Amino acid sequence: MAMTAPGILRRSPDGDYVVEATHPVKYGVTVTDGVLQQTLPFPEPGSDRDPLGRVPGGSMRRLVVADREVARLYGDPIQEFLTRHGIEFRLVAIPGGESSKRWKTVRRLCREFDSFGINRRGEPIIVFGGGVVLDVVGLAASIYRRGIPRLIFPTTLVGQIDAGLGVKTGVDFGPFKNRLGTYAPAQWATIDRRFLATLDARRLSDGLAEILKVGIAVDASLFEVLRADGRKVLHESFQGRTDSGDRAAREILDSSIRGMLGELAPNLREDEMARSVYLGHTWSPAVEMEALCRSQRWWLPWRRRPSLLHGEAVALDMMLSAGIALDRGHIDKAEYELIAETTDSLGLPLWDSLLANSRLLARGLRDTTRHRGGRQLAPLPQGGKVAFASDITASEVARAARRQHSLGGRAIG
Amino acid sequence: MAMTAPGILRRSPDGDYVVEATHPVKYGVTVTDGVLQQTLPFPEPGSDRDPLGRVPGGSMRRLVVADREVARLYGDPIQEFLTRHGIEFRLVAIPGGESSKRWKTVRRLCREFDSFGINRRGEPIIVFGGGVVLDVVGLAASIYRRGIPRLIFPTTLVGQIDAGLGVKTGVDFGPFKNRLGTYAPAQWATIDRRFLATLDARRLSDGLAEILKVGIAVDASLFEVLRADGRKVLHESFQGRTDSGDRAAREILDSSIRGMLGELAPNLREDEMARSVYLGHTWSPAVEMEALCRSQRWWLPWRRRPSLLHGEAVALDMMLSAGIALDRGHIDKAEYELIAETTDSLGLPLWDSLLANSRLLARGLRDTTRHRGGRQLAPLPQGGKVAFASDITASEVARAARRQHSLGGRAIG
Repeated sequence: MAMTAPGILRRSPDGDYVVEATHPVKYGVTVTDGVLQQTLPFPEPGSDRDPLGRVPGGSMRRLVVADREVARLYGDPIQEFLTRHGIEFRLVAIPGGESSKRWKTVRRLCREFDSFGINRRGEPIIVFGGGVVLDVVGLAASIYRRGIPRLIFPTTLVGQIDAGLGVKTGVDFGPFKNRLGTYAPAQWATIDRRFLATLDARRLSDGLAEILKVGIAVDASLFEVLRADGRKVLHESFQGRTDSGDRAAREILDSSIRGMLGELAPNLREDEMARSVYLGHTWSPAVEMEALCRSQRWWLPWRRRPSLLHGEAVALDMMLSAGIALDRGHIDKAEYELIAETTDSLGLPLWDSLLANSRLLARGLRDTTRHRGGRQLAPLPQGGKVAFASDITASEVARAARRQHSLGGRAIG
Repeated sequence: MAMTAPGILRRSPDGDYVVEATHPVKYGVTVTDGVLQQTLPFPEPGSDRDPLGRVPGGSMRRLVVADREVARLYGDPIQEFLTRHGIEFRLVAIPGGESSKRWKTVRRLCREFDSFGINRRGEPIIVFGGGVVLDVVGLAASIYRRGIPRLIFPTTLVGQIDAGLGVKTGVDFGPFKNRLGTYAPAQWATIDRRFLATLDARRLSDGLAEILKVGIAVDASLFEVLRADGRKVLHESFQGRTDSGDRAAREILDSSIRGMLGELAPNLREDEMARSVYLGHTWSPAVEMEALCRSQRWWLPWRRRPSLLHGEAVALDMMLSAGIALDRGHIDKAEYELIAETTDSLGLPLWDSLLANSRLLARGLRDTTRHRGGRQLAPLPQGGKVAFASDITASEVARAARRQHSLGGRAIG
């Protein structure tokens, strides 16, 4: 963790005291292949480049938090990996589903931190898991003793190209997605596509939605690769079973990691609210949360429905945005249909019955507007980039939803 | 809230991605007299100097959180004050005792934020309250939507010279003080000694402990004023009923605010763990928390005891530190007794039965050591400054505690 430059205290002409300081933020990302089989050299003195946070003379104790499923699949190789590097560890497994993304998990983690007796600065948490685990451990670590460092090994596609690259942590609160959180990057992220071998297709599609977002909003050549080879890469689980599948998998991962970091770095704390990478995130928080709530209505079993993965909700939102873009003339019919086809080829839904709920969509847009400082700033696709709209009406949204329904694509609920 | 300078993304020679950015921290403190009776001019365009966070063209909606007691005593003048300035507000009162400093209060506040529908950047929370309320509202505001701005009016002495000046927020967790928290300053703090008129003597003494700390550790001339006039200022509740009492009250407030800000500014995030102002904070977290737990044993009424205020625990810790300093020859007998006399004259305890609990003190020192990155770094008084010790033994602590007992001063429990 970087040191804060000394702040200064000055007196303003009005006689007020003013404190000014800057807090440096620094983190690293390694893209590698088969890290659990590697033996990482002990870092040179002064280097902060170690995925295990080892420093000469420093503590080798680590609390390791893993998604329960990851611990089941990779428990042995992870333990061998840590032992081979001289790490003395305790492994804590937590469930990885969206319903873990609540305060109760943060509380449990903080109790584990207490019981392990973590040294505040010198014993970083090590995390193996997907987006939910990364977000919730991130929040726990960032408020425990006002922040302890963490090192992450994202194990899902969403984790590798989104949740594991930024500085946002969070849990859901009441009916709201990510309502509580902090800006606190992991010190080091190690991205290894070998973890994706055991992901089921739906989880891969989940991550492909965020990649598609980068392709539509920022990087037209990435969109092109997705359109041409996305389905094959999905089929090969990014493991490169064929040469062309391997090339495409590497290209998709490299482009989306570089694209995401390039978008994030200039704007880590979202001071700029008009952001291309908010494409797909205007209505989706409300839609995703509503699906989650309805999937948990155990007391009304006949009203239960499957929940949506984050990426699925994002895909639905991107299609909705594309529909509005079409009506506004930002894209033409062919482009709209190309987006729909590519979305479908990546195993993502084109429709969900929740999109017929205009009150839900209105509430979602209202809440997002509040979150973006009072303006909608909804990114709409426009020829490899986005246009920002702040005057979207309910009837426009409804029209786009009807068009989306008539596409007749896959639906989850 | 200051804007983050754009970060950069670079590629290291090893092929890693490295993201580097700086996050600016800026906040202001106004020291004034009778703010509720004042009419504050609407700020000039571009000025961020407004205790009510008004900006030209900005929202005038504010959620106001007040200590329940403050709301009872100052509810009418606060409402008049806000109305006079055109603020459209909802007032939420929360209890101010130490037992409010828990997650449950953060949760309640976040629900209030949701129900008020706060705009994330343009509708700062306004807070009237003491240290507990400032800390807990601070944590809630700093994690709600990853941080919303707040403007504070500290109403207790602790709030005015300590909790309201720094960047630390927090709540207790399990048996640990301030275990969960963030570094997030209030945008603006307005310090008005008129709020102190209604504080009882014990609460004033509570704050005087932190002032005494600055006097012992940093500012010998402040110690001199406390020694000479502290009792009178306490008696006059800082309201200046006599000329000399008024002079001393202003001097004590000004010196401690300046001294505290001067200590904080260079080291906002505690990167430096050897800090003079940690005097009195080595054993006190454990002692204060233990007293709090024992005061709440409602199922064992005969084991209940009065709780300690934060400043009372700090005073006990300072005296313990002074005892060790005496044994180590940092101060002489006369200085030790002068510290004891001054502590006593400010209405603070010299003894508590918890100091006879050597296991508690050992646990407290162990936990503080962990918090300070593995070294004790206990500040010990030494002629108007402090010396840092990292080799304090249990028997030294026990000897200092016995000497402290034999002083025969006031005890709380």
